[in-house]
Parts: sequence; C-alpha cells; structure tokens
Amino acid sequence: MVNKFERARDAVVSTPSLVIDLPTVEANLAQLHQYAEKASIKVRPHTKTHKSVLFAKRQLAYGSRGLTVAKVGEAEVMATVSDDILIAYPAIDPDRRRRIAELAKTSSIHVAVDSAYAIHVLGEAARNAHSMIGILIDINVGADRTGVADAEASLELAKLVAKSESLRLDGIFFYPGQVWAPAGEQESPLHAIDEKLAAAISLWQENDLPCPIVSGGSTPTAYQSHCIKSQTEIRPGTYIFNDMNTVRAGFCQEEDCAAAIICTVVSTAVPGKGVVDAGTKTLTSDRNVLHPLTGHGHVIEYPAAVITRLSEEHGEIDFSACPNRPNVGDRISIIPNHICPCVNLQNEVILHDAEHNLTPSKVDSRGMLS
Amino acid sequence: MVNKFERARDAVVSTPSLVIDLPTVEANLAQLHQYAEKASIKVRPHTKTHKSVLFAKRQLAYGSRGLTVAKVGEAEVMATVSDDILIAYPAIDPDRRRRIAELAKTSSIHVAVDSAYAIHVLGEAARNAHSMIGILIDINVGADRTGVADAEASLELAKLVAKSESLRLDGIFFYPGQVWAPAGEQESPLHAIDEKLAAAISLWQENDLPCPIVSGGSTPTAYQSHCIKSQTEIRPGTYIFNDMNTVRAGFCQEEDCAAAIICTVVSTAVPGKGVVDAGTKTLTSDRNVLHPLTGHGHVIEYPAAVITRLSEEHGEIDFSACPNRPNVGDRISIIPNHICPCVNLQNEVILHDAEHNLTPSKVDSRGMLS
Repeated sequence: MVNKFERARDAVVSTPSLVIDLPTVEANLAQLHQYAEKASIKVRPHTKTHKSVLFAKRQLAYGSRGLTVAKVGEAEVMATVSDDILIAYPAIDPDRRRRIAELAKTSSIHVAVDSAYAIHVLGEAARNAHSMIGILIDINVGADRTGVADAEASLELAKLVAKSESLRLDGIFFYPGQVWAPAGEQESPLHAIDEKLAAAISLWQENDLPCPIVSGGSTPTAYQSHCIKSQTEIRPGTYIFNDMNTVRAGFCQEEDCAAAIICTVVSTAVPGKGVVDAGTKTLTSDRNVLHPLTGHGHVIEYPAAVITRLSEEHGEIDFSACPNRPNVGDRISIIPNHICPCVNLQNEVILHDAEHNLTPSKVDSRGMLS
Repeated sequence: MVNKFERARDAVVSTPSLVIDLPTVEANLAQLHQYAEKASIKVRPHTKTHKSVLFAKRQLAYGSRGLTVAKVGEAEVMATVSDDILIAYPAIDPDRRRRIAELAKTSSIHVAVDSAYAIHVLGEAARNAHSMIGILIDINVGADRTGVADAEASLELAKLVAKSESLRLDGIFFYPGQVWAPAGEQESPLHAIDEKLAAAISLWQENDLPCPIVSGGSTPTAYQSHCIKSQTEIRPGTYIFNDMNTVRAGFCQEEDCAAAIICTVVSTAVPGKGVVDAGTKTLTSDRNVLHPLTGHGHVIEYPAAVITRLSEEHGEIDFSACPNRPNVGDRISIIPNHICPCVNLQNEVILHDAEHNLTPSKVDSRGMLS
C-alpha cells in the first residue's frame, strides 16, 4: 500500500507529531455528505474529533446543519463559525448552565437532557439571562449511558419543557453507541431503535408537542442512517479522520484514515522489541473497541507489528512477525485506535496537503474543562 | 474518613477540576525525603507527575538533587529552577538532541541511553553546540522496556562514551518498573537487581571507567531503596500526589492521596447508574496496575461505588452497593488510578491550602511533545 504519510513522516520537525492528510479529510467529508443527501438526512458533525475551527468550517461547507459539541467551552469556540450548536451532554452544573444561557442570546443552542432537574435549572439560567435554550429529550436506545427509558418518560420531560417560558422544546436526542456492526452483516439493530423513537414521536404528537429535531447517529451507524426513518439528523464525529476502531469494525479501509502519529524508534535494546516515542500521552490507553487484543494502534510501515504495551512516553512494539525491522532513529507512522482523545492531547496538529506542504494548525477547543 | 476535598469540592467554579491538597503534598514530600536521608540516598524526583515549576521548587526545598524529566520540553521548563536535569528517555531524534545540546550549555544534563546510535548522535550534537552532555547507560533490570541486557553490554557503551570529547560518562540508569510489591511481603526482588548493577559497576571499575551516578527507583520501589545498595539516587514521581495505583498496591493509604477530580453527577436516568462529567479526557483509560477490575478510580464519598465504564466525557458509576446514592447536580470526588496522565490533561490544577483557599496553578510543562 502507498503510505500517504511518508513525506510528512520524513519532514516533520519533531516527533511524536499528529499529521492530518487533507485530501483524505476531503474525501471522507464528500462521501458522508453525499450519502446523507441521498438518504435525505441532515448532518450535524460532532466536533470533538477535530476540535478545530478549520475543520468545522469544511464540514459546514459540505452542507452540515450546525455543529455538535460535548463541552460548553467547545460550544463557545464553535459558535464563532456556526449559530446552531447542539451540546450533546447534560450540561447542568451552575457554571455550564450560566454560560449556555449566555451563548443562547446569540446562537441557537440545543442541550440534550434526561432529568427534570436539568430542565428546571436550565430554564432558570435562561430566564436569568433573558435568553431561550432549546431542549432535546435524551432517550436511551440501548447504550445505557444516559437517556430516559421509554416514550412515556420522554413525554413527561417534554411536557415540563413545554411549560417553561425560557425553554424551547426542540425534539429528541439519542445515541446508539452500542451499535458497532456494519450494515448488511445482519438485520440492522437500528430498526428496533427506530420503532422506539417512532413510539415516542407518536406519543408527543398525540399530546400536541412539537418534535422538529430527532438527532442521532455516530460514525459506526452513519451509513445505516436510512434504517432510522424517524431521525432528522446525525452526529458522526470520527468519520472526518477515521481510526483503527472504524477500520477494524469494517466501516472503512486503512487508506481512509486521515490521521497518523509520526514517531521515532528510540530503543531496540530489548530483543525482539522496538520502543517508539509515543506512549499513552500520545496514543492514550484506549483499546480497540471490537478487537481489544490487537494492540495500541497500527504501524503503517510494519503491518505485522503489534504495539504490545504503552507507558506514558514509551510505545513498545513487537516486530517479530515482520520480515524487516526498523533501526534506532527510524521514523514510523501509527494509526491510533481512537483518534478523538489523541487530538485532545495535541496543542496543534500538522496539516499535510496534496502538494506535500506541512502546516501546523491549532487544536482550538482542546483543554476545555467544562 | 474525613474527606479533605469536601470544601474544595463544594467551592470550585467548574467541574471536572483537579484539586491538589497542599498539606498532603507537604506530608508526602517530608516522608520520602526523611526516608531517603536515613537511607543515605539522594532524590531526583520525576517531574512528569506534576509538570509544575511550583512543585519542583518544593521538591528542591526538601533537598532533592536535581530533577528528572521525560521530555526535552519538560527539561527546558525545569531548567528554569534547577541546573541539574536527568532526561530519563533515549532522546535521540534530531530535534531533541539539538535542544539537549543547547540546554547543556548552561545546565548539567544527563541523558539515559541504550544504543551506540544514541551515543554517536548526542556526541555529534554536543560537538556542534560546543557543549558537554552527560550520559547514563540504561541497563534493563527486568522491566524489558529499554536498557542493555547486562554488564558486558553496558561496558561496551560506556567505553564509547569515554572516547567522546563532547560526552561525559555519568554512570548507570535503570528502571525497576516491574516491581509493584511492597517491601516486607516477600524477599525483595530488588536484591537481584542490586547484584546485576553491582556486576556492571565492578566491570566498569576494572576498566577504569567512572560511575558517579547510579540512578534508579520509582514510587513503588522508593521505600525499598535501601535494598539496592549500588544506587546513588532515586527518581520517584507519583509519591508527591499518590493515586489508586499506589493505594491499592499497599504503598500508602487513601488519606495520603493529594489529588482528586471534582465532578458533577449529570444523569441518573439509567437505573442503578450515575453518570459524572469525568470521562477518559479527565481520568484517562488507564486501569489500575495491580487490580485492573476495580474500575476507573475511587469515589471518596461513595467507597462502595464502582466506576464501571468511561467514554470521552462520561464516567458511568454503579452505585448499587452504596447505602445512599447521589442526585443529579451533586458533586463527588474521585481519586484516579494513575495521576500523572490526568495532570497532563489539565491546563491548570486547583491548589487547596490548609486555610481552604483555592488557587488555580498552571501545569507548566503540559503538552510538551518532544
């Protein structure tokens, strides 16, 4: 396979560096937005993956309907390029709700919540700020992380929102985080999710409650979005870069990965092993979701190598299955298991364009605590 | 147990926040330095744990002999408070070695290496910069990460260093990272390590090679340092804050932990579960070293709770074994499994002093790539 990171690998000043291949980013964006257009579904990308205004602008240029964030600090950054922001998080503590109410003065803000408490305190914050916060009711569709249990529970919260003068009932939020099977392999589990959502929507309609937005999706379910007829928009994040989670689950090929960690082999003293300058402070400890025993990422130059163990600054690689082995001082390129937290560890990433120019680019919303 | 984080928990502005209890820091520093003095061993603390000039200064005030860092960027920061820095890493790529040679103009720099390549390129960098870099030969004592295999291999590299006009042979480096048993439980595995080191030192002496520094240690082995008579200094890092790794391995008590993540319960919608605003981007995915199935940290207010699953911004906690459960909006305090990478995720930590003042403090050497 051609290694598109080769030129950047040999040219970056320091290692470890996170390089983003821009032509691959454009191809990933084009593919998803073409699919979404065909499926008549809107895209509201989750910016947690790139945390960069630059990439948010590209996503908007491809026709994204607003943006998704996890943190209020990210919302404040992304509100500089979009006036329609979904906070995919029950952001309910005093500091967050005050800032959300402030942001809602100038942007259309939607917050996903699953408790009467959240509705009460966000309503109060908006009232104090003389703004209007949009609310999505989070329904648990099987990930068992957040979300109310069923249609009846969602109706109860929707009624609370409808009663508030400072909140706007915007619809339903769900996160199918448990679905990691590609479409076609089996009867899509998304059909059952669709039935659950349809029941809630129907119950809301019977109670004259508006439900303009039904927001779901993730990168694993993105190309199965047509299986959830009820949803109006999807929130994939990883699709812009991809990683070994999406490759090993069968959602894309290795060549669709736009991000790699360039690192240096710093030791080969222990027999059969090479050590690189990328440990958990670069690659994180995240294991592969579906294949946790495949090691801590994929070495492009040595496909048979296994990244067996990480400590903070050391990545230990077993090269014993490789016909050749690198020497101390050689550079290699690693595709991480999970790209989102890797980007979060960088102050800046290095952009690689079609002409092989390398440009550092700030990770704008990195380090936003709340 | 008295929760020393209670006042800070209720007073910090936003969550998640990493709070450092300063009286506990002082007690931890005093205890280690008292032990080291009694054992006649010097302490060169690893600053990767706190990454802060403030805490480095406290460690120096307690009598530390210089400081340890993992990255050259950290060395550049810590060189502002100490002129004696050990880079516990084979820092051999062109960018790092150039910066090390520059730093060596004004500070005493020691680099731990395990290859002829490293000695060659560091020698060249020092020659170009008209400086002198100190070299420690890394011997593998069982962690199997870096380090040459035995006394003979260390002699070969030591001879190379001695021949170089721009390198200074400073001694031996080792990392007993595999030792996680408290002293007394068994015949200490450190005795075998001591024999291996003594063999190398003896061989060097026979060859008229100086070995003024024998640098070892880690927090788990810190209070067993008297079992390695050959070493002249230790490099513990975690001891300043402690964490659930050091607690669960029996090296300290919960009350010796100086750092906790203050977070907010944001959802209790899924039965039996509470979700807090601290996920992998706050706690990391690091599991407990000796007890990987104990969950992702320890909840001080709910000792029977188990942090069962983390995603990036969500921490899912099983409170089913607790007599009481928190409500949405409540704050709790979590002691992480591994404090070092958690500090690395923060732009600033919140210092809590004996008078309950809270003061934000910058994590000076966070985000140093190389």
